[in-house]
Amino acid sequence: MQFTTGQSQNKVCTMQDLLSASVSGGEVSFHGSVHKIRDMGDFAFVLVRIIDGVFQCVWTQGKSNFDIKDLKEECCVNFKGNIRAEQRAPGGFEVDLLEAAVLSNPAAIMPVAINKGKLNATLDTELNYRPATLRSGMMRAKFKIQEGIVRGFRDYLHSQGFTEIHTPKLIANASEGGANVFKMEYFGKKAYLAQSPQFYKQTMVGVYERVFEVGPVFRAEKHSTTRHLNEYTSLDFEMGYINGFEDIMEMETGFLKYTMDLLKTKYKTELEMLKVEVPEIDKIPCVKFADAKEMVSTEYNRRIKDPNDLEPEEEQLIGKLFKEKYNSDFVFVTHYPAKKRPFYAMDDPDNTKVTLSFDLLFRGTEITTGGQRIHDYFEQVEKIKAKGINPDELESYLMIHKIGMPPHGGLGIGLERLCMRLCNDDNVRHSTLFPRDINRLEP
Amino acid sequence: MQFTTGQSQNKVCTMQDLLSASVSGGEVSFHGSVHKIRDMGDFAFVLVRIIDGVFQCVWTQGKSNFDIKDLKEECCVNFKGNIRAEQRAPGGFEVDLLEAAVLSNPAAIMPVAINKGKLNATLDTELNYRPATLRSGMMRAKFKIQEGIVRGFRDYLHSQGFTEIHTPKLIANASEGGANVFKMEYFGKKAYLAQSPQFYKQTMVGVYERVFEVGPVFRAEKHSTTRHLNEYTSLDFEMGYINGFEDIMEMETGFLKYTMDLLKTKYKTELEMLKVEVPEIDKIPCVKFADAKEMVSTEYNRRIKDPNDLEPEEEQLIGKLFKEKYNSDFVFVTHYPAKKRPFYAMDDPDNTKVTLSFDLLFRGTEITTGGQRIHDYFEQVEKIKAKGINPDELESYLMIHKIGMPPHGGLGIGLERLCMRLCNDDNVRHSTLFPRDINRLEP
Repeated sequence: MQFTTGQSQNKVCTMQDLLSASVSGGEVSFHGSVHKIRDMGDFAFVLVRIIDGVFQCVWTQGKSNFDIKDLKEECCVNFKGNIRAEQRAPGGFEVDLLEAAVLSNPAAIMPVAINKGKLNATLDTELNYRPATLRSGMMRAKFKIQEGIVRGFRDYLHSQGFTEIHTPKLIANASEGGANVFKMEYFGKKAYLAQSPQFYKQTMVGVYERVFEVGPVFRAEKHSTTRHLNEYTSLDFEMGYINGFEDIMEMETGFLKYTMDLLKTKYKTELEMLKVEVPEIDKIPCVKFADAKEMVSTEYNRRIKDPNDLEPEEEQLIGKLFKEKYNSDFVFVTHYPAKKRPFYAMDDPDNTKVTLSFDLLFRGTEITTGGQRIHDYFEQVEKIKAKGINPDELESYLMIHKIGMPPHGGLGIGLERLCMRLCNDDNVRHSTLFPRDINRLEP
Repeated sequence: MQFTTGQSQNKVCTMQDLLSASVSGGEVSFHGSVHKIRDMGDFAFVLVRIIDGVFQCVWTQGKSNFDIKDLKEECCVNFKGNIRAEQRAPGGFEVDLLEAAVLSNPAAIMPVAINKGKLNATLDTELNYRPATLRSGMMRAKFKIQEGIVRGFRDYLHSQGFTEIHTPKLIANASEGGANVFKMEYFGKKAYLAQSPQFYKQTMVGVYERVFEVGPVFRAEKHSTTRHLNEYTSLDFEMGYINGFEDIMEMETGFLKYTMDLLKTKYKTELEMLKVEVPEIDKIPCVKFADAKEMVSTEYNRRIKDPNDLEPEEEQLIGKLFKEKYNSDFVFVTHYPAKKRPFYAMDDPDNTKVTLSFDLLFRGTEITTGGQRIHDYFEQVEKIKAKGINPDELESYLMIHKIGMPPHGGLGIGLERLCMRLCNDDNVRHSTLFPRDINRLEP
């Protein structure tokens, strides 16, 4: 009988491992893809892509025990060579290749060059050839940073007593009202794809007090903009026993501070590669929706068209204004009009035309929507009716209010948008692994 | 201008905080739900449910500055009281209540009693009233353990150099072949819900070498069994540069060892509450599919009906046999027939009727399917054709083989099934937060 023991013979070799080995020098083994070959005749530079970086190897006629012609770009190889410190090489070391055992060969050349520094491609080309373009250094760096954001979100909330949950994406009711929901057949019934984990995360506040979820959400929005996706990753949390919606903004501020520090510590190489300016977060200004509109109108001599919503351009100008006045990359815009907020948003008791809610703008783009929710059963039923919805349709959701809920609230952060603003991309698709929009379902 | 600073005034108070405070005694403030009231006339026991436990408080006429009639079960309250160590009380402390500020009241009594120890309800009742039943101690413990499994998966793989990814659930092609896929309309085109992140995690092996994802998967299976769900949480990983599919089984063994240790350390209270027997994992036996079938047939005098698949009863008997013979709760069954494996499974070069693949059985139930994938473009195209599929339909997937892939493989673990077996549940729905089956879309 054979057994597994959990001791894998299959080891990865990282840039740090190689750098360490280069101090004393000597023979090293590693596997990787051939990223680029520069054949100089008697010798050749071979750039090898490993799990977390690219470094330079040297093939030399007569010294390396294989033919340079055996290597193609993007073939996967087990290498042996002698490592030495080399200040001039990227990464600080270089390997003189001794042996190469080719594990696999590509069947075609790369459709887009990924080994010339910056990717020289249109957005469409970048996305059409995602499996190829993601192998470039810049793209690898970007989605590593994205990993870091998610890691920061989880680690920070875990430290604050939150429980992680996984809630269903197939649901019987459209959570945010009727529009922009994907419908489907479900064994002869109608089902919807969840636009957010809203109902379920609220339900779980009654169970664990503080919960979070990282998962996909689906929006059937028909317009194609630089900021919208039809499927994205939402970072959601919800917390009970709040004193006000300010507690939620404080929690988000804590998350952002923690995460920016994490990125600066653990994702330094990636930030440098993309020349990301990590925002300094000391304190984040909070401005009321109506005041923000007014300020922008006065400052930039702009007529207010829609008093109930912010136009994208207004968001940009609010971002600009608060950067200039308070040197902040972030600004909380609070007290959104009740008209534009869903039925579960709690109205401001001092002015029921606005809600105890907020958006967070990052460099002029909305990356978060949040607020306090109604916890009282009768108040919630009233507001549902006032919004023209039949409370019977929401019976299963209203069970939580019926059996008692603490004062609570929460938020949802668009992962790709946060990443887009951080990396200073002009289109959210650049910051999305495999974007879904009205025209794109592949790859 | 107001600012947030990330310093929330909103603090949680845990069982550990209270236990620490009870050593010296004195006044404490905390918030929670009234879990149960036992009114004894001049005094009353009030069980309070806080973020991570339930403990006993005492209301005394004349000493507590509020009327016990002001408290209802499931109302949410800010309490003040004097804490003291009390060996006989659950948790080791007790609080003499001084003040109670009721924050919210339920509009109805609980539809199911959740405060009488074990939940006395049928499966249907348990699920119909999920928002209520999840508040019981046993259910809170179960989904905390589920959180621990996910945490173990992520932490272990992170330590092994894996990168976390988030891939789309809306896809243009049915990943595992045609059957059991949910279809939907996508802006006039046809889209499917991903049955697994298969294509995308393979794609990402070409980018980061080792990747994992925790996310929902969707299976339109029409049968209703105790082990199947139409939506579940899949723990997926995929790794490159493997020497064989054994590397994947070793990685899974490492994850299981790490996670069981994590549970024993960090989720001790929950394990004890549910009387979970955490499996001891030293080494896991690996048996070939054909041999396992033969062994069970001989040992239990059972006729082999389907030579290409395992019946649920056979899985149970394999589990039983290996528990008896090797004292193992887990067994890897390897080399599944090619007929029953998807087109991306790599055939065994020594016997092309079987694949380099495996299932992991845990206490007689399959919780994992994994294996080595085909990495060579021409070999993959051949096998797709042999399975009767037109390779053109998979053009966007085949791009990864075309541009070169290392030898690789991976697996998917059903989170709810693993949790079900660990907690010794007789139906996977007990271990699912909000299960989706052919009859259930709510709550």
